[in-house]
Amino acid sequence: MTLTPEQQAEIDELRATPRPTLRAVSEGMEGHLYKANPVLDHGFVRVIDYMGDDAAICQAARVSYGRGTKAVSNDEGLIRYLMRHWHSTPFEMCEVKLHVKLPVFVARQWIRHRTANVNEYSARYSILDREFYIPEPEKLAAQSVTNNQGRGEALGPEEGARVLEWLKADAARAYDHYEAMIGQDGQQGLARELARMNLPANIYTQWYWKVDLHNLFHFLRLRADAHAQYEIRVYAEEICRLVKDWVPHAYAAFEDYRLGGATLSGKALECLRRMLAGEAVTQETSGMSKGEWREFQAVLG
Amino acid sequence: MTLTPEQQAEIDELRATPRPTLRAVSEGMEGHLYKANPVLDHGFVRVIDYMGDDAAICQAARVSYGRGTKAVSNDEGLIRYLMRHWHSTPFEMCEVKLHVKLPVFVARQWIRHRTANVNEYSARYSILDREFYIPEPEKLAAQSVTNNQGRGEALGPEEGARVLEWLKADAARAYDHYEAMIGQDGQQGLARELARMNLPANIYTQWYWKVDLHNLFHFLRLRADAHAQYEIRVYAEEICRLVKDWVPHAYAAFEDYRLGGATLSGKALECLRRMLAGEAVTQETSGMSKGEWREFQAVLG
Amino acid sequence: MTLTPEQQAEIDELRATPRPTLRAVSEGMEGHLYKANPVLDHGFVRVIDYMGDDAAICQAARVSYGRGTKAVSNDEGLIRYLMRHWHSTPFEMCEVKLHVKLPVFVARQWIRHRTANVNEYSARYSILDREFYIPEPEKLAAQSVTNNQGRGEALGPEEGARVLEWLKADAARAYDHYEAMIGQDGQQGLARELARMNLPANIYTQWYWKVDLHNLFHFLRLRADAHAQYEIRVYAEEICRLVKDWVPHAYAAFEDYRLGGATLSGKALECLRRMLAGEAVTQETSGMSKGEWREFQAVLG
Amino acid sequence: MTLTPEQQAEIDELRATPRPTLRAVSEGMEGHLYKANPVLDHGFVRVIDYMGDDAAICQAARVSYGRGTKAVSNDEGLIRYLMRHWHSTPFEMCEVKLHVKLPVFVARQWIRHRTANVNEYSARYSILDREFYIPEPEKLAAQSVTNNQGRGEALGPEEGARVLEWLKADAARAYDHYEAMIGQDGQQGLARELARMNLPANIYTQWYWKVDLHNLFHFLRLRADAHAQYEIRVYAEEICRLVKDWVPHAYAAFEDYRLGGATLSGKALECLRRMLAGEAVTQETSGMSKGEWREFQAVLG
Repeated sequence: MTLTPEQQAEIDELRATPRPTLRAVSEGMEGHLYKANPVLDHGFVRVIDYMGDDAAICQAARVSYGRGTKAVSNDEGLIRYLMRHWHSTPFEMCEVKLHVKLPVFVARQWIRHRTANVNEYSARYSILDREFYIPEPEKLAAQSVTNNQGRGEALGPEEGARVLEWLKADAARAYDHYEAMIGQDGQQGLARELARMNLPANIYTQWYWKVDLHNLFHFLRLRADAHAQYEIRVYAEEICRLVKDWVPHAYAAFEDYRLGGATLSGKALECLRRMLAGEAVTQETSGMSKGEWREFQAVLG
Repeated sequence: MTLTPEQQAEIDELRATPRPTLRAVSEGMEGHLYKANPVLDHGFVRVIDYMGDDAAICQAARVSYGRGTKAVSNDEGLIRYLMRHWHSTPFEMCEVKLHVKLPVFVARQWIRHRTANVNEYSARYSILDREFYIPEPEKLAAQSVTNNQGRGEALGPEEGARVLEWLKADAARAYDHYEAMIGQDGQQGLARELARMNLPANIYTQWYWKVDLHNLFHFLRLRADAHAQYEIRVYAEEICRLVKDWVPHAYAAFEDYRLGGATLSGKALECLRRMLAGEAVTQETSGMSKGEWREFQAVLG
Repeated sequence: MTLTPEQQAEIDELRATPRPTLRAVSEGMEGHLYKANPVLDHGFVRVIDYMGDDAAICQAARVSYGRGTKAVSNDEGLIRYLMRHWHSTPFEMCEVKLHVKLPVFVARQWIRHRTANVNEYSARYSILDREFYIPEPEKLAAQSVTNNQGRGEALGPEEGARVLEWLKADAARAYDHYEAMIGQDGQQGLARELARMNLPANIYTQWYWKVDLHNLFHFLRLRADAHAQYEIRVYAEEICRLVKDWVPHAYAAFEDYRLGGATLSGKALECLRRMLAGEAVTQETSGMSKGEWREFQAVLG
Repeated sequence: MTLTPEQQAEIDELRATPRPTLRAVSEGMEGHLYKANPVLDHGFVRVIDYMGDDAAICQAARVSYGRGTKAVSNDEGLIRYLMRHWHSTPFEMCEVKLHVKLPVFVARQWIRHRTANVNEYSARYSILDREFYIPEPEKLAAQSVTNNQGRGEALGPEEGARVLEWLKADAARAYDHYEAMIGQDGQQGLARELARMNLPANIYTQWYWKVDLHNLFHFLRLRADAHAQYEIRVYAEEICRLVKDWVPHAYAAFEDYRLGGATLSGKALECLRRMLAGEAVTQETSGMSKGEWREFQAVLG
């Protein structure tokens, strides 16, 4: 991703003029405001605004009358307690607004998270740029042989090169025709709302996306997961980095209890108890299906 | 849209075996269940399930203990009262589940209505069919000259033919390469989650969409409107036809108060009062901008 | 709870007249329709309507074109897979509408679950009945000494009797005055929307509550939990019984993975691995706080 | 409402220490931060935090890359356009967090607006204060004779005095017994989660309430309306005053198009056209019911 000089100048200007506020301020997040963090070949994530910090989570949990006087160590403990016991409403008291540029097929997954506010660039109203996601060769992976919904080994160099050639050529041709359709030189020019249908799903779009911290954590748990598609996972990972600087205690609790944690079924817990009592439990004696047992073994490392 | 013999047989079988239920039954909706109503060239809308009827709306409004004994004419009046005064919760007590097949660029607009439940065909997991929306020639319209977000006159025959040729050829080539990328004959085969990015936005997808009647009316008000894009409006109009048979009183109230109604601003109401008192109000003396005045005139016919 | 003869007659009539439908039918749920299941001293839960069954969950997961032909054993496995991997959208495809009568202080907790549709009896419009929740003596528990948000031992008989006397007398007096305020015999009569403010939180209200199965499971996981307040837990348990008959496979999966399961943090999983490798881990060497360690021990039984 | 010296000191301290931020700042809203605005006899509304300003609405509408360079007059026009055409997503890009103290019967109405985040003071965990809403004598109104859901004339002095006496005495007695039940002096002490059931609906509770501007406008349209109950309307009106200082252009558009506007049905528009053409339309010839006609006449002034 390269910013135009105008874009960079705009960011510099926005960052040059701090103003006084009485609101809660997160120093870590102030450092990120407006900056474009590159993701994939043309995408980015940038923070446009935020509300609240770690202390705001605790303040809401206490519905205290003021900002509270507890030491940071107490705040950290309270945040861990809230996360552990699925008390979600205090985390909803923080909010963040991001500007994201991303391929359309990633946007289609992302938008399935409904509890957020979105303003997307309108291809009915405006003309899309000639920017397509073309994967790096080592990211061109084969269909997984064990998982219907995933990818396996990287393609060999010859097959990879063939795929890249098609992706580039088809995108270029589709965009050439898109431009030719909407052009008004010597013709009427097709409506933009129609012409866009010729564009492939790797074209970039952009949106403002605003979400509260609880729902953002839910998004991150699913999309920063190893099973998420690589092209959305890199966005989730970039956002994780930003959230860590915004609300460090909340993020640490999220990392321990959600990203690094696991949910075990009643059957799995029963097996665990037998194993801790010294019994050698096998899939056959576990009461679990093969798939469950495999996942259970993975959790136990 | 043509159904395969297997699909038609499945529908016939589902419709052949009524079962007894004690729930509220809408005769009008039973007649539609499972049938595929064609929309655009390959799309459809079909009703998979529904909950409630006109009486259920009234019953919820009364939170009566049983089904109530009021005559139908009273139900009709109550429903009109509820609609007029924006009492939305009784309408939320009805629910419908639709199976919709639609082009991806229409799906992208549709999904912006967040208060619904969705299960979409997964192109990570499965292979998409070779089906693309190719507009009928008379629907190929030029960009509107007065409205940045709309379409105007139909394209002339030559320009239209050129556009159609591009749409067809680009879709065919993109799909050929999609197939070639995922094929596993003599190669590893690209992961489906990656290959899909080569497909244009006029390819068809499908989903189950479940929504309550209040939120459905909100969707229909926006999407059955004359300013909505034609390709989503035809879906909304088809759904209107189904809803009319499902909850006739609620639909009639919706038609009068929402589809056929208009919201006037305080300024517009003030102008109206002056006009009814005999004054000849003009845009200049109205206090409205030119755009508002034009829309106000349109409302007054 | 005692039904009036009119109410019972109405239920009998509603249950006497099955009608044919082409929709999915759950035999287990048909047996419950309209019947009032008593909860607490004057409350109840009754099923007014439902949409979908176990097969509908699978059908949505497959977005198959028809009802699908997989054997029941496959459906069961698919449902367990969906629950285990937090695939929530197929469960959202089922919906249920309940009529619930419950004390106001229970309603206040219940309503915090926002993803549902509600029509409550209006005390602005109508007059509330003289019905109050008066706990059974053995349910009158002391404040917990270990948990700020819970109850401990039952009160001794003398203290319990004193409490009961106050609850009864205060409710009776409040209702007498409520009636006296709104009465129009020889006076104007206070507006009902004002008079209601004199009534205590153990008065009964009622509502229609409609929710999809995914969000219902979320409600039940929190409210059928041992830490939930007894007075809402008994409602959740009654609903569990109904859901078990409605969607037996989904309920069994919910029971194993949610009600009977537990979420372990990254720290807890690390401890487990050390314990399974033979190490004697203590709270001091676990890296967990005392509270976390106590909860971890409870999970391991 | 009187603040304790500690509360006032806390507010003063919070307001004494501005910090630099790069985020959008609303000068008008900064002036309100943390201050308690009295409502009713013991209630208040205070702003804890906010996100965005008028410019942020426009920025989202344009999904512009930077803050945009359009003059304020353009922003105002754009905001009016967005409001007029029900483009709600740009307004969702602003967010506000309020701390509200309010009687329980008001809270019960308020919470029905589901699209918001809430943290309420917990009466399971904590002890409620002895603070009850006791209406001013002139607010003690009789049940409306024309509207089942509203109030009419003020009560006469004697009847009013009788009502006030009951409200005060019953609240005092209920609180005395609440305190006596939970006391642990010489007895076990009833659990707080049970004792609260003895408290009437005019006791005060408090919560943090966070909502986006679009949903806040929806709340204000319904609750600042003349038909809303007085006791919630005064909160809505206080919030209107705050929003006006926060986002002046958006509030002005809201005032014109929503608060001061009206929605007319298709039938009503048809009548208007006939009236403007000189016809003397009556209820009988209007096609409207008596209720609709009366409301139509009210709109026309």
